[in-house]
Amino acid sequence: MKKIKTGIVGYGFMGHCHGEMLGTFDEIIFAAAADTNLQQLKDVPEGVHTYGSIDEMLMNEELDLIIIATPNPSHLEMVEKSAKAGVHIICEKPAAMSVGEFDRMTAVAKENHVIFTVHQQRRWDKDFRIMKEVYDRRLVGDMYVIKSQLYGINGNMHDWHVYPEMGGGMLYDWGVHLIDQILFMVDSEIDSVFADVRNVINRDVDDYFHILIRFKNNMTADIELGTYYLTPKRAWFIGGTGGSAMIDGFGGEGKIVKTTHLLENVPGKITMTAAGPTRSFGPPAPGLLIEEELPVTSAEHRDYMVQFLKVLHGEEELAVKPEEVRVVLDVMDAVRQSARTGEAVRFKNNNQR
Amino acid sequence: MKKIKTGIVGYGFMGHCHGEMLGTFDEIIFAAAADTNLQQLKDVPEGVHTYGSIDEMLMNEELDLIIIATPNPSHLEMVEKSAKAGVHIICEKPAAMSVGEFDRMTAVAKENHVIFTVHQQRRWDKDFRIMKEVYDRRLVGDMYVIKSQLYGINGNMHDWHVYPEMGGGMLYDWGVHLIDQILFMVDSEIDSVFADVRNVINRDVDDYFHILIRFKNNMTADIELGTYYLTPKRAWFIGGTGGSAMIDGFGGEGKIVKTTHLLENVPGKITMTAAGPTRSFGPPAPGLLIEEELPVTSAEHRDYMVQFLKVLHGEEELAVKPEEVRVVLDVMDAVRQSARTGEAVRFKNNNQR
Repeated sequence: MKKIKTGIVGYGFMGHCHGEMLGTFDEIIFAAAADTNLQQLKDVPEGVHTYGSIDEMLMNEELDLIIIATPNPSHLEMVEKSAKAGVHIICEKPAAMSVGEFDRMTAVAKENHVIFTVHQQRRWDKDFRIMKEVYDRRLVGDMYVIKSQLYGINGNMHDWHVYPEMGGGMLYDWGVHLIDQILFMVDSEIDSVFADVRNVINRDVDDYFHILIRFKNNMTADIELGTYYLTPKRAWFIGGTGGSAMIDGFGGEGKIVKTTHLLENVPGKITMTAAGPTRSFGPPAPGLLIEEELPVTSAEHRDYMVQFLKVLHGEEELAVKPEEVRVVLDVMDAVRQSARTGEAVRFKNNNQR
Repeated sequence: MKKIKTGIVGYGFMGHCHGEMLGTFDEIIFAAAADTNLQQLKDVPEGVHTYGSIDEMLMNEELDLIIIATPNPSHLEMVEKSAKAGVHIICEKPAAMSVGEFDRMTAVAKENHVIFTVHQQRRWDKDFRIMKEVYDRRLVGDMYVIKSQLYGINGNMHDWHVYPEMGGGMLYDWGVHLIDQILFMVDSEIDSVFADVRNVINRDVDDYFHILIRFKNNMTADIELGTYYLTPKRAWFIGGTGGSAMIDGFGGEGKIVKTTHLLENVPGKITMTAAGPTRSFGPPAPGLLIEEELPVTSAEHRDYMVQFLKVLHGEEELAVKPEEVRVVLDVMDAVRQSARTGEAVRFKNNNQR
């Protein structure tokens, strides 16, 4: 079998991650790496050719595939050059700074007959995959809300993430994943987006967002991220007519809770709380709540590349389709617009605005 | 000192609560109780006169004060009759089914020179009072979000709460409290209301709502209630530039979390999680997070009546002012409108729509 000659452009944090991952595939040759900062190239694996620019790399190497991990605003240039050189492309997320930019990417890839996809590898996050199983198998009945929450304790962004002109901020960094997961999960078109986006302790870039996506099937997705929330958490909640499913942790720790029966409409039992009596919010009667295990799934980020290789061999369709990525970017634009105007941003049919 | 002769109309669940509370005040005589269902009057305290209607009670008793605890849709009639009889009024919440109805109540009270207020006693909830202290004293710096969450396990409503025509549903029952608390806490005018309201397992009335109130001071209040959420919880969260304050429980159990320092903008430390590497959402470095105690407050529902007696004696202004109650009811109307239309509902100056 012909090996896939692969180059990486942008050999920083994610470039290194990709380099390591490539090394785990017999079928792939990690042939070359390019970075304008030569310091970053000092620790490439043995045998990998290094270049100071994508132009040099493309001129000197016969690549099958390029992985683009340069700063966000340069993705368009990198995609254009790679496509014109006839090289298939995996681009880091966020693929583009706007939908308009992304449309130019897909156009140039199409013109040059190269495969173009985006590294939305968090579709293979374990916690997400478990919740997708809950959703797909309707394990909690008719669902009305899906919550995806990510809270941190650092506050400050690191590296280039503090610079808006580099595509910094949490909406570009993590928002693109959290939105992509939800749109990949929910089998319905978008009705509207309403959002709050804030620079809490970072002066120039967003470090908190809260996004409500309402779907035409009447479900609401509620996505919230805060870097300075000070209660570290990666949580999921799905509420339905048949119970609740919840996770706290990237490892997928959680449970499904159901009730053995619904209460009869009889006089409510009065419970005395520290804040006076309540009939609706007292503790559960013994035996009312039952817990079930969450479904078991296996998924890891490496699966992204396993799937992509099948696409290269013509065995499968792209898992991360450009038209899906486009909708995610459009939702991000809608998020910013809603946060700026205070209005819900409506979507028409087929996820078009 | 002249004692306050008090009557209660509607001697069900809340009527009984009021009866018990009145018995703890030397200064009050619980003189009479009226209910169209005579069964409910069987256990009135000794010496309390009982009547089958408010008309009989008002005809036969010289009351100073009436407490109205009849079903919600009858409040207007009760207020009109009491005001015309020259009796001061405490009305159960929700005071009215709509702002229009409430305006008729305040008008008739004014014409007849009686004091009119509403039993929004949850302004004296301990958990709420603690968070109000956090807010008033700016204990977590500049705040951007206040969350108030109440989740239950019962699902079904009890008694008349299942009937829309009786003013059933959780928005009328608890929404009115949760909104009132927020508006009492936040010293800013409302900019907009966006909401989701659902009948999850109750056919005819709402049993889940999620309300985002954006204020002109740029703070967002996030109120969520679910009766069939299956993770019992009464939680608060306030996020600010100086930390986070959180409570879980009507008793006010919780903490304030701050950081000893903000991270420098240096290359982020990479943490390997079950879902791959992350630099922003790893665990905190030892010593980074510090916890502080929440402020101590004392408050109980009985304080509502203590304060009201001071109003009767001309010593204080009403704590629960009709114009405040009116805004709460208007927000509830806006909540329903937003849930119905999918749009944010904007407020103009002075909390007017």
